[in-house]
Amino acid sequence: MEHFDVVIRNGTVATASDIMQCDVGIKDGKVAMLGRGLPPGKKEIDAAGKLVLPGGVDAHCHLDQPMEEGLKMADDFRSGTISAACGGTTTVIPFAAQAKGQSLRAAVEDYHRRAEGKAVIDYAFHMIVSDPSEKVLKEELPQLVREGYTSFKIYMTYDDLKLNDRQILELLALARREGAMVMVHAENADCIGWLTEQLEEAGLTAPKYHATSRPMLVEREATHRAIALSELVDVPILIVHVSGKEAIEQIRWAHGHGLRIYAETCPQYLVLTADHLDDGYHGAKCVCSPPPRDKANQQYVWDGLASGLFTVFSSDHAPFRYEDPQGKKPGGKEVPFRYIPNGTPGLETRMPILFSEGVGKGRIDLNRFVALTATDPAKMYGLYPRKGTIAIGSDADIAIWDPHKEVIIRNQMLHHDVDYTPYEGMRITGWPETTLSRGEVVWDGGLACGDVGRGQFLQCGLPDPARPKKIIPA
Amino acid sequence: MEHFDVVIRNGTVATASDIMQCDVGIKDGKVAMLGRGLPPGKKEIDAAGKLVLPGGVDAHCHLDQPMEEGLKMADDFRSGTISAACGGTTTVIPFAAQAKGQSLRAAVEDYHRRAEGKAVIDYAFHMIVSDPSEKVLKEELPQLVREGYTSFKIYMTYDDLKLNDRQILELLALARREGAMVMVHAENADCIGWLTEQLEEAGLTAPKYHATSRPMLVEREATHRAIALSELVDVPILIVHVSGKEAIEQIRWAHGHGLRIYAETCPQYLVLTADHLDDGYHGAKCVCSPPPRDKANQQYVWDGLASGLFTVFSSDHAPFRYEDPQGKKPGGKEVPFRYIPNGTPGLETRMPILFSEGVGKGRIDLNRFVALTATDPAKMYGLYPRKGTIAIGSDADIAIWDPHKEVIIRNQMLHHDVDYTPYEGMRITGWPETTLSRGEVVWDGGLACGDVGRGQFLQCGLPDPARPKKIIPA
Amino acid sequence: MEHFDVVIRNGTVATASDIMQCDVGIKDGKVAMLGRGLPPGKKEIDAAGKLVLPGGVDAHCHLDQPMEEGLKMADDFRSGTISAACGGTTTVIPFAAQAKGQSLRAAVEDYHRRAEGKAVIDYAFHMIVSDPSEKVLKEELPQLVREGYTSFKIYMTYDDLKLNDRQILELLALARREGAMVMVHAENADCIGWLTEQLEEAGLTAPKYHATSRPMLVEREATHRAIALSELVDVPILIVHVSGKEAIEQIRWAHGHGLRIYAETCPQYLVLTADHLDDGYHGAKCVCSPPPRDKANQQYVWDGLASGLFTVFSSDHAPFRYEDPQGKKPGGKEVPFRYIPNGTPGLETRMPILFSEGVGKGRIDLNRFVALTATDPAKMYGLYPRKGTIAIGSDADIAIWDPHKEVIIRNQMLHHDVDYTPYEGMRITGWPETTLSRGEVVWDGGLACGDVGRGQFLQCGLPDPARPKKIIPA
Amino acid sequence: MEHFDVVIRNGTVATASDIMQCDVGIKDGKVAMLGRGLPPGKKEIDAAGKLVLPGGVDAHCHLDQPMEEGLKMADDFRSGTISAACGGTTTVIPFAAQAKGQSLRAAVEDYHRRAEGKAVIDYAFHMIVSDPSEKVLKEELPQLVREGYTSFKIYMTYDDLKLNDRQILELLALARREGAMVMVHAENADCIGWLTEQLEEAGLTAPKYHATSRPMLVEREATHRAIALSELVDVPILIVHVSGKEAIEQIRWAHGHGLRIYAETCPQYLVLTADHLDDGYHGAKCVCSPPPRDKANQQYVWDGLASGLFTVFSSDHAPFRYEDPQGKKPGGKEVPFRYIPNGTPGLETRMPILFSEGVGKGRIDLNRFVALTATDPAKMYGLYPRKGTIAIGSDADIAIWDPHKEVIIRNQMLHHDVDYTPYEGMRITGWPETTLSRGEVVWDGGLACGDVGRGQFLQCGLPDPARPKKIIPA
Repeated sequence: MEHFDVVIRNGTVATASDIMQCDVGIKDGKVAMLGRGLPPGKKEIDAAGKLVLPGGVDAHCHLDQPMEEGLKMADDFRSGTISAACGGTTTVIPFAAQAKGQSLRAAVEDYHRRAEGKAVIDYAFHMIVSDPSEKVLKEELPQLVREGYTSFKIYMTYDDLKLNDRQILELLALARREGAMVMVHAENADCIGWLTEQLEEAGLTAPKYHATSRPMLVEREATHRAIALSELVDVPILIVHVSGKEAIEQIRWAHGHGLRIYAETCPQYLVLTADHLDDGYHGAKCVCSPPPRDKANQQYVWDGLASGLFTVFSSDHAPFRYEDPQGKKPGGKEVPFRYIPNGTPGLETRMPILFSEGVGKGRIDLNRFVALTATDPAKMYGLYPRKGTIAIGSDADIAIWDPHKEVIIRNQMLHHDVDYTPYEGMRITGWPETTLSRGEVVWDGGLACGDVGRGQFLQCGLPDPARPKKIIPA
Repeated sequence: MEHFDVVIRNGTVATASDIMQCDVGIKDGKVAMLGRGLPPGKKEIDAAGKLVLPGGVDAHCHLDQPMEEGLKMADDFRSGTISAACGGTTTVIPFAAQAKGQSLRAAVEDYHRRAEGKAVIDYAFHMIVSDPSEKVLKEELPQLVREGYTSFKIYMTYDDLKLNDRQILELLALARREGAMVMVHAENADCIGWLTEQLEEAGLTAPKYHATSRPMLVEREATHRAIALSELVDVPILIVHVSGKEAIEQIRWAHGHGLRIYAETCPQYLVLTADHLDDGYHGAKCVCSPPPRDKANQQYVWDGLASGLFTVFSSDHAPFRYEDPQGKKPGGKEVPFRYIPNGTPGLETRMPILFSEGVGKGRIDLNRFVALTATDPAKMYGLYPRKGTIAIGSDADIAIWDPHKEVIIRNQMLHHDVDYTPYEGMRITGWPETTLSRGEVVWDGGLACGDVGRGQFLQCGLPDPARPKKIIPA
Repeated sequence: MEHFDVVIRNGTVATASDIMQCDVGIKDGKVAMLGRGLPPGKKEIDAAGKLVLPGGVDAHCHLDQPMEEGLKMADDFRSGTISAACGGTTTVIPFAAQAKGQSLRAAVEDYHRRAEGKAVIDYAFHMIVSDPSEKVLKEELPQLVREGYTSFKIYMTYDDLKLNDRQILELLALARREGAMVMVHAENADCIGWLTEQLEEAGLTAPKYHATSRPMLVEREATHRAIALSELVDVPILIVHVSGKEAIEQIRWAHGHGLRIYAETCPQYLVLTADHLDDGYHGAKCVCSPPPRDKANQQYVWDGLASGLFTVFSSDHAPFRYEDPQGKKPGGKEVPFRYIPNGTPGLETRMPILFSEGVGKGRIDLNRFVALTATDPAKMYGLYPRKGTIAIGSDADIAIWDPHKEVIIRNQMLHHDVDYTPYEGMRITGWPETTLSRGEVVWDGGLACGDVGRGQFLQCGLPDPARPKKIIPA
Repeated sequence: MEHFDVVIRNGTVATASDIMQCDVGIKDGKVAMLGRGLPPGKKEIDAAGKLVLPGGVDAHCHLDQPMEEGLKMADDFRSGTISAACGGTTTVIPFAAQAKGQSLRAAVEDYHRRAEGKAVIDYAFHMIVSDPSEKVLKEELPQLVREGYTSFKIYMTYDDLKLNDRQILELLALARREGAMVMVHAENADCIGWLTEQLEEAGLTAPKYHATSRPMLVEREATHRAIALSELVDVPILIVHVSGKEAIEQIRWAHGHGLRIYAETCPQYLVLTADHLDDGYHGAKCVCSPPPRDKANQQYVWDGLASGLFTVFSSDHAPFRYEDPQGKKPGGKEVPFRYIPNGTPGLETRMPILFSEGVGKGRIDLNRFVALTATDPAKMYGLYPRKGTIAIGSDADIAIWDPHKEVIIRNQMLHHDVDYTPYEGMRITGWPETTLSRGEVVWDGGLACGDVGRGQFLQCGLPDPARPKKIIPA
C-alpha cells in the first residue's frame, strides 16, 4: 500500500452529492484514497470538526485584463490567485479578451504572457470574442477550441464588446459544431444607451443612476433574445450574472420548453441592492452590470439557487481601485456613472458569503454549495474530473473549512489589491482555514503560502453540456 | 490496514455527482475504502469495463399490500425483493396501508409480519393514511414518525383511500411539526367519478376508457390543489407519479414561487402511452393511475428529468396478474375498467429502462441516473447516507452494470410473480450483472442468490427536505 | 312621426361602443329614436353638458335574502332598489337562495313574495343552489331555467352553502344542457376552516383576522379548480368577486387556453384593502369574502378591467347594519370574526366609484364603464337587448350623469337601510343626477321618486355566452 | 323634421356593442337618425332580413406603394378602393413609405399625388419610417402628426426598412410626446438572414422555405423585444399581423403586467397554413411575413379574437401579380424565396372571411366582428367617431350584408388587379350586397358604382389609446 504525501484526517468530506466522515489520502498531487484510518502521510492535517470541501472553481473573474486607455485592473494573476486561494478557491477562469480588430489568438497569447509565472493556483482561460471576423470564425476560434480554450463569452452590451444578433448566431453555430460553451452577458445595449442619455440630459449622473440606466427589463429582453438565438441554433448557452426575477422567469420558461439554458449568479445579487449605489460617489464601488436589484429580487435568486435553476456561482471579480485615477475615479475625478469602470471585487469572499448566507442560514444544503462553487463549474467548462471534486484521481484541490469561524469582513484582511470590498463589515460564519492546490498548502489561515508561479495553465476539455453525447460512459 | 471482505476492482464508480476509476473496498457490509490498487479482499470482483453504481432505492412500490375482498397482490416481500435485486435495486420502500377504521399502528405491525423473514434486500416502510382519526393524528402517527416511519402517502382519489382537503391540511401540519415527508397521489376523485359514470352510461367500459376517465386536467387540478395546501401549511410535499405536461407546469410554477414541491415520475410515463390501453382487454395490463399519456407528454417528462424538476424515479410496482381472478380479471371475468385493479409491475425493469432510454440515449447523464434512482430517494426519505450512494461508511449496496449488455425484455426472464410485463419485447442496452446488498451478492446475473430473510427493516431518519435546518453540518 | 313621451335633449349619449351627441326619444317606456333636433316630447329633459348612459345592471347583490336564525339583511326590495336607482342602476339581480333541504322552486316562490310590490326598478333573479338533490337536478332547475331563471350561483365555501366537486359537475352539466350561466364563489372551504381554527386557538379573533383566514391562495386554488371543472364539462362559468392577482392569473391562463371563463369584480377590490379591517371592531364593516387585499392587488384588478379580463362589475351589496344584533354585532355583541356576517353595502356607490376612479382618472374609458356596469351584465344574464343599453327598442333605462359633480360620500346621503358605508368620506367626481326606468324618472337628484312597486320582474333569456351558437343573427 | 337623403329601412343594425331592428336615416352623408318608421328618404333601401353594419376600416393595406427597382404593386387607389368597397370596406389606411435617405414629408406628398383623384372611398395615411434622421425626428414627424398623420409603422426586419432598437426607442419616445400610434412589424431580421443563408447554402430555395426561414420564434423574439421597448418608454404600441401562439403568449404576458400592447391579425393567419406555400412555385402566392403557421396556431389566433386579445383585424393587402415580372416572378422568373415580393391580396375578402368563419361558425359574435373590422381600428387610428360605427353624426359608411348569401371565392369575381387570390375556391356564407360611403352607394352587389375620385383624404385625430387621458368626456 502506497505512502501518502498528505493525509487529511478525520474531517467531514463533502462532494456535490455526498457527505462522509473519512480521511483523504493524497499522492502526487491527486486524491489517491478515501477511507477511515488511512496509513500515515508525510504530512498530516487534522480536520476533526472541519469540512473538507473541493476547492472552488471561480469560473467568472477578471484579472489583468487589458483595458481601454487610462484604466487598469488592480489584480493580476499573482494577487488575484492568492486572494482566490485564501477564499477557498483553487481554480480561476479569467478571460483572454479580444479587442475589436485584434487577432483572437494574439489575445490568448498575450494573456498567457500576463499569467506566466504569477499564479499560485491553477487557471484556465475563457475567451471574449468581440470581433468575429472571417478569420476568427473560420480559423482561430475552431483551432483554439481544439487546443483547450473551450468556452467564450459574448456581450450584448458595452460599445467596445457588443455583438449583433447575426454575429451571435454565427458564434453559436460555431459553438455547436465544435462543442464549445458560450457565455452570454445579456443586457440590451440600445436601451442602456438611450436611458443613459435621458439621465444625462436631466443631469442625473451620480453613481446611483447607473442602476436606473439598466432596469430589469433591459436584462429580461436580452435574456429572452439570447434564449431565442440558442433555440434557433439548438445549442446550449450559459447566461452569466443573472440578477433577478424577470431574467429568471425567462430561464425557467426555457427549461419548461426543454431548452438547455444554463445560468450563473454572483454574490452581489444575493446581498447587495441598488441602495448600495446610493451613497454619494462611494456608490461607484458597487457599480457593476447588471446592477444589484432589491430584496425581493434577492429572494428570487435564492429560490433559483435552491431549486437548481442556477448551475454556476461565480464572483465576476472585476478589480478597480476606488481611489485610483486608473480605477473608479478615472483621471482622478468623480465622473458621471457612464464613465465609471464596471465591476466589484469578490474572488476571496465569494465562497464564504454563499456558505454563510446559504448553507449557514439553511437556504441551500452543503452539497449544493459544493456543486455551485466547484463541481458544476468544472463540468460546465471541461475541467472535470480533474477539478471541482474530491474523487479518486482528481487533483487534490481542497479547502478545509472551519464552519463555525466568525468573521467580520474587512478589506484589510483580504488579499486582493483592491482598496475596498463592497462587503465591508458583513458578518460571516464559516471560512476556509486551509487551502490545498494539487496537495500543496497555499493558504494556511494565516499566510498565503503558495509559491508564486506554481499555478498551472489548464487546457479545458469540451464542456459537458455541449459535448456530443457519449452513449455510455467508460 | 484492514482486510476487506470484498473488493470490487477496476470499475467505473459513479455517484450522483462523480465518476471515477477506482476500487471499492468493503468491510462489515459497508464501503470502507475507495482508491486504486486496494489490497486484496476475501472476495474479489472484477469490474473492469463495468459501471459500479449505488444500488437503487425504489421508493414507491407495492408488495403484499392488503387488498379489498377478492383481490391479491402477486408479489410479496420474497418475490418482490428478489425481482428488485435482479434489477439493480437494493432498497425498497413499500406501503403499510391503513384501512379506513383501522389503527395505523396495527397496519404497520401487520405489515411487519408480512415482511418478516422474506426479504432478500433491505426495506423501509412508508405508511398510507386513509383515516386520520383523532387517535392517528394525536398519538399513532407522531409516535410512528419518531420510531422511523417518517413518510406517509395520502390519496386525493380512490373511494377507500381519499382524504378531503381538511384532512390533508391536518396531516400536512403534523408533517411539519414532526419533520415527516408527505407523498401525494394527486387526482381529483369527483372528476373521475363523474366521468366514469358518463362513460358507463354510454356503455364505454373497455380498459382504454380508463385513460379517458382520468384526463390530464384531473391530475393538474389536484396537483395545483396539493401545492396550495402545502403552501398554506409551509411544508414540503412530494407529488408522486407525475405523468405529463400540465402537472409539470404546476410544479414548475411552484418552484418559481419558492415552494418546496418535490416530484416523482415512473417508467410508465416515459415509454408507455394511452394507446397501450387500447388493445382489447389486454389493455388492462397497463391500467394504472394516472394513466400513461402520449408522446408529447413523454417528452415533457424527459425534460423534467433532465432539468432537475424531478427528484425521484420510482417503479410504482403494483403487481396484479393478468390471468387471475384475484388480479386483472376479478372473479375471472373481463370487467368494466372501473373494476380493474390499478397498477403495473416494474420493480425489476425500472432502472434498466431509465438507463437505456435515458443515459444510453443521451437524455440524462449517469450522475443524474444515480441521483434519481438511488441517492435522492434515499435523502428524500431519511435513508441517506446509509443507503443510496457509494461513500465511506455507507452500506455496500452496489449494482455492477454491464453498460453494453443487450437485452430484450421478456416476462419469463423477470423474477416477479406477475404473469406479464408491460415492457414485453422492449430492447434495452445495459443491465446490472451483479447486485450486492451490504456487501453480499444477491444477484449474480444468472441466479438470484440472496438468502430469503436476510433483508433488514430500516428505520428512516427525518427526510432531508422536511428536517429542521441544521445550521452547519457535522 | 310619433310623439315622444320623453325626450332627453342635447346630451352626450354613450353605449358600450359609441359616444354621440344626440337626443333620445322615448315612447311607451322604450328608446324610440336617436337623432338631433327630435320633435318635442311630453316631457323634456335638458341634458346639455351631461352624459346620457344606460342605467346600470347590478348583477350581484343581496336583498332581503333569508338568513340563518338571528341575522337579517337591512335592505329589502324597496330600500334596495331605491338605493340602486339613486346610484344610476336600473336593474338588480339578487338571489333566490335555496336552503339545504329546501325546494328550489319554493325558494324562488318565496323570493317573489318578498319582492312583490316593493321594487322601484326592474329586477330579475339569480338562484343559489345549495342542495342539488335529485329533484332539483331532474325537475326544478331545468324547468326554472326555461321559465326565465337562467343563472344560478354556487359556493365553494360557507358551510351552509358549499358544494363538493361532484355536485358542481352535475350542475355544470345541467347548465350546459339548458344553456344556463353558473356563477362561482371560489374559495377553498377547508383551508378557511382550518386557518380559522388555527387563529382561534391562538386567540386571534378580531375582525382583521378575517383577512388572515382567507389568503389569496385560498381563492387561487378554488379558482383553478372551478376552471378545471368548467373545462371538463366544456361549459362557460363566471367567477364572481375576483379580488386580486393570483386569481386573475388563473383566469388569464384559462383565456390563453381558449376556455370560456368570465369574471366579475367589485368596488371593494378597487378601493379597499385589508387594512380597512384593522380598525378594532369597526373592521367588521369591511368583512366580506374574499377580503380586500392590498394596493398591489388593486392595480392588478384595474389592469384586468382595462384589458378586458373582467366582463362584469357588480356591487355584491350585502346589507348588514353595524350597530345591530341582527347585523355585524350578532346578539348585540362584538363577536369573533367567524361569526360576523359577511358583506358590505354598495348598491348606490358602485357606479360612482368606478366612474370617478376609473373613467375620471383615465384607467378605463367611458365605453368600458358602460360595458362593465350595464351592457355586458345584461348580455351575460339574458337581459339584453331589453336592458343594458341605449338602443332602438330597448327599455328606456337611462341615467343622466353630471360628470363634474363633486361628492364626498356620506352614509347619510345614501338611500339604503344600512347604517354605514365602507366608503365614508371618499371624494367622488361624477354622479347620476337623474335616473329613468322605462322612461319614468325614479331619481331626480334630490328625491327618490319612483313609485314603490312599479318595478317589474324580468324573465331572463339564455345568457349570451352559454346559449347555443346562432349561426347568423336576425 | 328633416328629410333624409337616404333611409335604410327594416334592417338589423349592429354596432360594436349593440344589435337593433331599426331604420337608418342619412342626411348630408351622415347618420342623422335611428328609429323605426322613419319618414321617407329621397332614396329608400330595403334591408329587411339584412344586416346593416358599419363599413369596414381596413387599417393595414398596401396600395401603389413605391417599390424597389423592378417591382410594382398591382393595385393603386382606384382598383384598391373599388375592391375594398365591394368587400364591405369604406375606409382604407395604406402607407406613405419613406425610403432610406428620403424626406418623410416628401414621401407623404408623393403618396397624396398617387391617391389624388382615384379613390372611391375615403382614405387616411399611415407612414412608414425607415430613416429616422435628425430632421425626421425633430421636424417632419412631429409636424406630420399634428397635421393628421398620427400613426406610423416601423419594421424590425427587411433590409431596406428595418430599424435598430435605438431608432425604435427614439420613435417611441416621439410617439409618446406627440400622442401618435406606432405599429410594429415584429420579426428578428438577423435570425431570418442567417436562416435564409443556411437554406440557400443547402439549396433549399423553393417558396415553401420562406416559412422555414421565419419560424415562430423569430416572431416571438421580436414581439418580446418590442414589448420591452414599449414598456421602457411607457407608450402603447400595436403589433401588426400576429400569426400564432408564441407571439400571442408574449402579448398576453404584457396584458397581465398592465402594459398597453395592442395587436392585429389578418385572414391569412386564420385560414391559411404553411402548407399553402408547399405547392411548387404557386406557393409564392402565399409568401407573406410572418408566414401562415399551422392549424393549432390558427386556433390560438381564433381564441385571441374571441377573448379580446386582438383589437384590429386587417387584410395586410399586398398586391403582387403572380404571372408578372414586376410581381411574384421578378424579371419573369421563378426566383429563390428570398427574392419573392412578400404579401398576399385580401382587401375584398377580409370581411367576408371573418364573417363566415367567425360569426357564421360561432367563434365570435356579430358585435365583435364589427369591433374588429371597423370600430376599433377607427378608434385606434383617430378616425372615430367619423368612421367605424353607425351612430348619430358619424359618416354614413355602411355595408348591408346578406348573411345567408353563399359564395365560392373566385378571383375573377374580385375587383382588385391581382391575378390570383389565396382563397380561391373557399366557401363563404354572407357577403355585403350594398356598400355606402358617406351615404352614396359605391357597390350594389353587381357593379362597383362609386365615382372614381370621390374618396376623400382623412386627417386622423390622435389615436384613442395614445391620447393624453381626458378626465371626463364631453
